[in-house]
Amino acid sequence: MFNEKIILAPIGYIKTDAKGDEVREKSHHAKIIVNRNLNAALDGISDFSHLFVMFWLNQIKEEQRIILKVHPRGRTDLPLTGVFAVRTMFRPNPIGLTLVELIAVDDNVLTVKGLDAYDNTPVLDIKPYDPLDIAENPRVPDWWLNLEKDKK
Amino acid sequence: MFNEKIILAPIGYIKTDAKGDEVREKSHHAKIIVNRNLNAALDGISDFSHLFVMFWLNQIKEEQRIILKVHPRGRTDLPLTGVFAVRTMFRPNPIGLTLVELIAVDDNVLTVKGLDAYDNTPVLDIKPYDPLDIAENPRVPDWWLNLEKDKK
Repeated sequence: MFNEKIILAPIGYIKTDAKGDEVREKSHHAKIIVNRNLNAALDGISDFSHLFVMFWLNQIKEEQRIILKVHPRGRTDLPLTGVFAVRTMFRPNPIGLTLVELIAVDDNVLTVKGLDAYDNTPVLDIKPYDPLDIAENPRVPDWWLNLEKDKK
Repeated sequence: MFNEKIILAPIGYIKTDAKGDEVREKSHHAKIIVNRNLNAALDGISDFSHLFVMFWLNQIKEEQRIILKVHPRGRTDLPLTGVFAVRTMFRPNPIGLTLVELIAVDDNVLTVKGLDAYDNTPVLDIKPYDPLDIAENPRVPDWWLNLEKDKK
């Protein structure tokens, strides 16, 4: 049952001049070049200020998809944690998910802010952000809050 | 370039007694049965109150993946809109994304609240919800707000 194969194709690719950790900077702008055949699927997108972007973490090798626990951000002072309890790139299905701000739409090119993905990353889906889909007072572990503080 | 094939496998399946639109009820509880081989990947997940669940919309047929515009919720009084500007199931890569509340963890079984997916839906990924990943004052079109009001 878990051998079922699910086949996806990129709907676009990310273009950015940022290298390495620069992509994590919140002010970082990137472009999503959408397949021109899908142009009509963007109709109405500029009515939204924020989007979820799903992308394929193509730097993860097949043999890295069986890693089940990691130290968050590779920091050995933080507890070894299951990959479903971390936003690590190492996951059985290496799909990234980021909430971005939509800055501009020009034909098949979206300019977005806050997309922490590398140049040439394949994009799998784009969804509008729903303001009513916000969890109030979510509970997270202490190590998570400490990592967030370090990001500032 | 857009012909690249990306291959995923389910990490688990959704079990629910809810039928049809019952799955959309916010109070609806469902179970995610995670592949036992991935049990270690759940370590630490109970420290989070909320999760993002990505799932494969397996009721969408191959030929429906080329639909580019829809009326939101099939309502012809609402504008025909590109699928990347709606949360419709019809999308080139039919992946669902829902924020859920984590109610209980028992071995390889997660009980969650608010997962709007049908019985036997394959799960692709589970990610912790990040409270700092919230967009403030997001802008959405009027039709979206009207739909949300109808949900209440």
